[in-house]
Amino acid sequence: MQIKLDYNNMMTEFVGKHGISQGDIDALKGKISAAARAMENKRNQMAWRDLPYNQDDIVQDILLYVAEILPRIDTLVVLGIGGSALGPIALNQAIHGSFYNFCKKPRIFVIDNIDPTTMNDLFAQLNLETTLFSVVSKSGATSETMAQFMIVKDMLESRLGKERTKQQIVCTTDAQNGNLIKTAKTEGYKTFYIPSGVGGRFSQLCSVGLLPAAFCGIDIKKLLAGAAYMDKICENDQNPAYIFAILHHLALKAGKNISVMMPYSDGLKFMSDWYAQLWAESLGKKYDNNGNEVYVGQTPVKALGATDQHSQVQLYTQGPFDKVICFLTVEEFENDITIPKTFEDMPTLGFLGGNTLARLLNTQQKATEYALQKEGRPNMTITLPKINEHTMGQLFYMLEMATAFAGELLNINAFDQPGVEEGKDATYALFNRPGYEDKKAELETALPKSEKYII
Amino acid sequence: MQIKLDYNNMMTEFVGKHGISQGDIDALKGKISAAARAMENKRNQMAWRDLPYNQDDIVQDILLYVAEILPRIDTLVVLGIGGSALGPIALNQAIHGSFYNFCKKPRIFVIDNIDPTTMNDLFAQLNLETTLFSVVSKSGATSETMAQFMIVKDMLESRLGKERTKQQIVCTTDAQNGNLIKTAKTEGYKTFYIPSGVGGRFSQLCSVGLLPAAFCGIDIKKLLAGAAYMDKICENDQNPAYIFAILHHLALKAGKNISVMMPYSDGLKFMSDWYAQLWAESLGKKYDNNGNEVYVGQTPVKALGATDQHSQVQLYTQGPFDKVICFLTVEEFENDITIPKTFEDMPTLGFLGGNTLARLLNTQQKATEYALQKEGRPNMTITLPKINEHTMGQLFYMLEMATAFAGELLNINAFDQPGVEEGKDATYALFNRPGYEDKKAELETALPKSEKYII
Repeated sequence: MQIKLDYNNMMTEFVGKHGISQGDIDALKGKISAAARAMENKRNQMAWRDLPYNQDDIVQDILLYVAEILPRIDTLVVLGIGGSALGPIALNQAIHGSFYNFCKKPRIFVIDNIDPTTMNDLFAQLNLETTLFSVVSKSGATSETMAQFMIVKDMLESRLGKERTKQQIVCTTDAQNGNLIKTAKTEGYKTFYIPSGVGGRFSQLCSVGLLPAAFCGIDIKKLLAGAAYMDKICENDQNPAYIFAILHHLALKAGKNISVMMPYSDGLKFMSDWYAQLWAESLGKKYDNNGNEVYVGQTPVKALGATDQHSQVQLYTQGPFDKVICFLTVEEFENDITIPKTFEDMPTLGFLGGNTLARLLNTQQKATEYALQKEGRPNMTITLPKINEHTMGQLFYMLEMATAFAGELLNINAFDQPGVEEGKDATYALFNRPGYEDKKAELETALPKSEKYII
Repeated sequence: MQIKLDYNNMMTEFVGKHGISQGDIDALKGKISAAARAMENKRNQMAWRDLPYNQDDIVQDILLYVAEILPRIDTLVVLGIGGSALGPIALNQAIHGSFYNFCKKPRIFVIDNIDPTTMNDLFAQLNLETTLFSVVSKSGATSETMAQFMIVKDMLESRLGKERTKQQIVCTTDAQNGNLIKTAKTEGYKTFYIPSGVGGRFSQLCSVGLLPAAFCGIDIKKLLAGAAYMDKICENDQNPAYIFAILHHLALKAGKNISVMMPYSDGLKFMSDWYAQLWAESLGKKYDNNGNEVYVGQTPVKALGATDQHSQVQLYTQGPFDKVICFLTVEEFENDITIPKTFEDMPTLGFLGGNTLARLLNTQQKATEYALQKEGRPNMTITLPKINEHTMGQLFYMLEMATAFAGELLNINAFDQPGVEEGKDATYALFNRPGYEDKKAELETALPKSEKYII
């Protein structure tokens, strides 16, 4: 059951001058070959590409742990941010939909912000004795996650006692370095490891994604098998990941600085969020690999069909020619619903009767695709035959491969994020962290704000 | 309690050449004056601007209805899409946070898509006898909402009988025209009206937004008072709505085709979705008022702080100079949480102890703002002293005014959405709706897709 990429509507034959021509692709041939070679040569440096193959023991460990813990918990709270949150949210939504927490156990809450209102409201929901807190931070220095962890640890120890607290916390972190592994060892918490060389946004197929998935009854072996299946597909020169990257690269060069991901499926809604991190943080870079200032990157935009036909599609069809739209569609929904023939005499509604919601949804996608094509707007469609672990594994892995390949085409490092350091340093300085006195002084001598620009 | 716009970091003094200079604003003076005059002259054509003032009777009707119904329902299901959904979602999240449905009654589910999985999962949650379905469609011809309505009506009538069904449905629609008002009158459903001249994305302050808000215990009089308060502020030439529009207009002219809305508050998370519709659908236009092809529009992007510091901020600080970032911040959170001094000996964590989550969140906003400024990235901040009905009323109204004013600056019609017709027509054709035979023929003769572009 293979996912497919349909890129007809990216091509000039279909969308005219704002599309990509075969000539454009041919002209990029040298770069494409170089990028493909780099993907082979650097495979050893991309530890995330081994995850579909090298985790038998880890999967076993996770499944045993889950089987042991599950009978005594009714809620899993994941404390993590960025890649530690977005993959788990996306996968659980895909497999279980929007109402999982209203009908299934264990409930799962992924808390990826430090809003005090949210934290208070969360705590009010919980029976601490039946809640497992899963703390996820590779470095153990993520301020948001570690602040949450400190609050939770303190609360658990004061309410349940130190011994019992150990059973309510699990840590996913680096095996060697950082404060979280150190604390976990001191306190005796169960731990899972994030392999070295696997960065946050490429971590969905390691323990970061597998542990919460397993708790929710998701078949993580099938997920990994799907990823391996896509990895094999990507051994061909012509593969959907590379094509996705090449087309986006050419579109970006032609001024299309926006990449819209628009699933027509509530289940796939949060794949857009996961993709937004992957594409933005990997490709938004100031320097290329030769140290030149390049300021590249394509801004990901999250949309949802059919919903955003009533919000964004006006802009997509009639606004500037500045975007590529990628639809995600699902061929077969598990339980469909037939629209009754209630208003057969009403022209604007009668045609709906007897059709199903899935047909309406997929027809609207086709119609939107057509409307975009007609207005000369490049778009492509990734189709999942069904949403399941195998197709989701393919989708995660395909988009990771596409991102890495796009990084090679841009000749940038897709795996770092130097641009977030300045904000972190400024936060440390504002909190008077020792060692940040210079930054503090810099902030204090920065231009004071003018009252005339506050209204 | 007034919301404030701080635009220091939009200006060249603060962000250098990618900012806006006083000279840029001065050079636009003629257009600004013309736009301000147009806002006055066209006030009669902007019925949404009367909503803060002319709804005493409607508010009374809503409050009486809610008081009557509330004792016998535990769940409100809103069937609506676009403006009928985004405002209610944004406001309830702002006032009640992410966990409202886990602890309060009536639960509220806003169903703004036609995914059959979601619909099935929703129905599995409901006790139909204690659920009120609120159907919202001005035209009564919105395929998605009306398909939902047909399914729900059929289900209710078969399970509860026709008489009882009447008590479980309320319709918000045009007072005169369309299938929904016709059906509501025939069936005897309670109705509320969407004033003529109030379009979907400007409808949050009429019954569309007020009814669900009142059900959730939100003080709708204070909401409208907040909007009126902002309307008075907007009588000054120098007001935050016009400044917001002017700065975005100048940035757009300078190639910044992306407008990021980034609240640092979970409560304000879905204001970004509401804003995304308002800004995209109002300003994304092919023709100006003189019939010239202009293809204008700025693409709204939804982000959330601190969360997206770990997803989008790398791109925002180091990618292309193609965006304006607008932060939303909250000065005072209702219940704050103090981070305990757990790891005082650890340099990367010790500084957190003794601070509060609200302080951490707001400090991170300041730090991100500083990092962006340092990299020459224009940004502005709207600050709410607190989140409550009055400040939310101000915020909704301010952004509506800003959007209308931005439309005037672009010399386009901010209140239509002609670009969505093509997709609707194609949907009708694909469903063989009578009258769409020509469109069907057009679709059938469109270029067939090529297998070579499917992989």
